[in-house]
Amino acid sequence: MSQAFYNHLENFIKINEIEFASILPFFKIVKVRKKENLLKEGQICKTNFFVLNGCLRMFFINNKGIEQTTEFAIENWWMTDTISYERETPTAFYIQAVEDSEILVIDKHSQEKLLTEFPKIERYFRFIYQRAYAASQMRIKYLYDFTKEEFYDHLCENHPEFVQRVPQYLIASFLGFTPEYLSEIRNKRRS
Amino acid sequence: MSQAFYNHLENFIKINEIEFASILPFFKIVKVRKKENLLKEGQICKTNFFVLNGCLRMFFINNKGIEQTTEFAIENWWMTDTISYERETPTAFYIQAVEDSEILVIDKHSQEKLLTEFPKIERYFRFIYQRAYAASQMRIKYLYDFTKEEFYDHLCENHPEFVQRVPQYLIASFLGFTPEYLSEIRNKRRS
Repeated sequence: MSQAFYNHLENFIKINEIEFASILPFFKIVKVRKKENLLKEGQICKTNFFVLNGCLRMFFINNKGIEQTTEFAIENWWMTDTISYERETPTAFYIQAVEDSEILVIDKHSQEKLLTEFPKIERYFRFIYQRAYAASQMRIKYLYDFTKEEFYDHLCENHPEFVQRVPQYLIASFLGFTPEYLSEIRNKRRS
Repeated sequence: MSQAFYNHLENFIKINEIEFASILPFFKIVKVRKKENLLKEGQICKTNFFVLNGCLRMFFINNKGIEQTTEFAIENWWMTDTISYERETPTAFYIQAVEDSEILVIDKHSQEKLLTEFPKIERYFRFIYQRAYAASQMRIKYLYDFTKEEFYDHLCENHPEFVQRVPQYLIASFLGFTPEYLSEIRNKRRS
């Protein structure tokens, strides 16, 4: 696993193997089973998660008691409730494994220590948050601009591997559909 | 103006006056008049904007030809189309002054040079993007969870100074209302 994380870091910063060996102990590797929760509503989100293998999703329980998925993270993506993590306030979200997954976990104290000892990691996380923010700026545009059907088509066109990989009821939960309605759209597209 | 930016930086990083004097030349100060565009759809967004005084908004023209506001930035906030800025692709957005404003502007090349010469600025921008991303995670939750009326109430409760400051037709554009519908809601709340 460590090779994959090393390669990922190298996409953003120059890092040698000695530095990498010193960085690695700041993280823990956690294995989670499909549908296991890494975070539950009301808890303080004390950790930041990086997907080595598998898939996570973030959701909240909406007014109607339905799970509304807001994010997915596959290999090489970070996931946390950023506001709860930074401010140490109770989260409104759940983070759950979509598949059996292998996750790199870092707590806030260790992350701060890592950033102090290895300032180049600031550059890495600056890129990570910059890209996450860029994606969310577009996401907000789509939420205003697209009908749910258009958003589904956009997803199929831009992330076909993702639509194949994630169970359809979770794609429906991400789009704000019922699974039945998603089935209907898929059948329409096929006919 | 430079004192305000210095104080702002000091909220995030330790910086002395000599360093600050070396950092300042990387930026330009630009004065824009109310309704002047800093960015237009189709352009490549080459600059990152920091509001010293005034207010900016970001919007796109939706399918119905209507301006849909997605973000505002007041004093001490950055604004750019992050994806266009990073990838040098044409933007789907406009950035426009809501009030006569004084803006600190940095282009991508200068920002990269600044980050190389002053690595501590990486830490500053990591915080900036982390907070922007945290806010957008909650924003996406609200877009799924709140009716437009609930979102308006949330805005009034959490950012009353903002609802007072920004013209009502732009608050309507941010919420996805018509200005008439916002008037109706405001009248209902008052009665």
